[in-house]
Amino acid sequence: MPAFIFDLDGTLIDTSYAHVMAWQQSLDEVDIPVDGWRIHRRIGMSGGLLLHALSDELSCKISPDLARRLQERHGEIFRESPCVGRPLRGAIKLLRKLRELEIPYGIATSGTRPGIKPSLDALQIDDSVIVVEGKSIKHPKPEPDELERCRQRLNVPAEECFVVGDAIWDLLAASRAKMFSIGLLSGGYPARELFDAGAHRVFCDPTELHDSLYQLGLCP
Amino acid sequence: MPAFIFDLDGTLIDTSYAHVMAWQQSLDEVDIPVDGWRIHRRIGMSGGLLLHALSDELSCKISPDLARRLQERHGEIFRESPCVGRPLRGAIKLLRKLRELEIPYGIATSGTRPGIKPSLDALQIDDSVIVVEGKSIKHPKPEPDELERCRQRLNVPAEECFVVGDAIWDLLAASRAKMFSIGLLSGGYPARELFDAGAHRVFCDPTELHDSLYQLGLCP
Repeated sequence: MPAFIFDLDGTLIDTSYAHVMAWQQSLDEVDIPVDGWRIHRRIGMSGGLLLHALSDELSCKISPDLARRLQERHGEIFRESPCVGRPLRGAIKLLRKLRELEIPYGIATSGTRPGIKPSLDALQIDDSVIVVEGKSIKHPKPEPDELERCRQRLNVPAEECFVVGDAIWDLLAASRAKMFSIGLLSGGYPARELFDAGAHRVFCDPTELHDSLYQLGLCP
Repeated sequence: MPAFIFDLDGTLIDTSYAHVMAWQQSLDEVDIPVDGWRIHRRIGMSGGLLLHALSDELSCKISPDLARRLQERHGEIFRESPCVGRPLRGAIKLLRKLRELEIPYGIATSGTRPGIKPSLDALQIDDSVIVVEGKSIKHPKPEPDELERCRQRLNVPAEECFVVGDAIWDLLAASRAKMFSIGLLSGGYPARELFDAGAHRVFCDPTELHDSLYQLGLCP
């Protein structure tokens, strides 16, 4: 029996663009101007890794203390966004379909509660669903630890897991965890980059994945 | 002597993400939910074409009257964004360099005054620079009319023009106008799609174009 491990932001919830704006504003406030597209390409990493990558790319120094404050401020701005709790097209239908088919699934996200609570609520994900949060993991995506933890709790072998994510960081982590991965375009990453990062298949959004489960050998 | 014709939003000004959010909010307000990534892929079109494309893609009906109201509402929300008037990295330096080298340039944008006024001001573009606005043109990008009008006013032959844009719509229009085109990643479009749309070269942002003018046979 296969299982699914879903990323959250950009995969089930339409928050990628709100994250870009929130990072940009929080960096602006400390006089580190970063163009939106550079942030977008790092969305899906943990906040700590994203800031590390941007500081490296722009040759600016972000101390651990500043990084902590930026992550807090990003969270504050993000929570005010109207996109928080906005499921992507077909996300609720897809999860319902998996429950009907009795296919197990879990969530592995770099986000943490309480920040992700509105997203989980909007997706009707209750305590019966396994949710691995970033704060519980020492090495976030693109390292495989989050996926591996979720897999253990689902109690399925790696070769039966489909990882679904919108960012190349999800797919790279899936490769390292020896799992199949499915890329979605719904976070704004290019299809070519998702394939290059190891995606077994790429679909537009949760609706197209729902309609294409037969391509994965499900829904005969 | 070559000349440059620049797109504005996403090419010289960091507004692509703010446009996505403004379109999404204005569509939400009339109960037409559209995921952010679908809007992003249409940014760079005129508002009318963008709404036509989305309504087609999502099989929903947007009457001409509703389209007019949505465009007005998008403009209102957009003008409140903190990104309005935020030049992309290197944009001012690039335009200054062209003036130093006495290389003529103009702007051809789907936007119109007064909406684009803060962007022009932030880029220090005064009345001496040729600016072709969307409202003065019947057939917007990806049709070649805006570029052709700008070229006529610059008084240079098409084969001497480099069109610089972040969206495939800019590059498709350049092909139709028989001009060379330069793609920039700064609007968030994938490099592969920019090349597929005919880009002669693709650079990250105005800074990299500034540093690479020698690749175009300029700045020996």
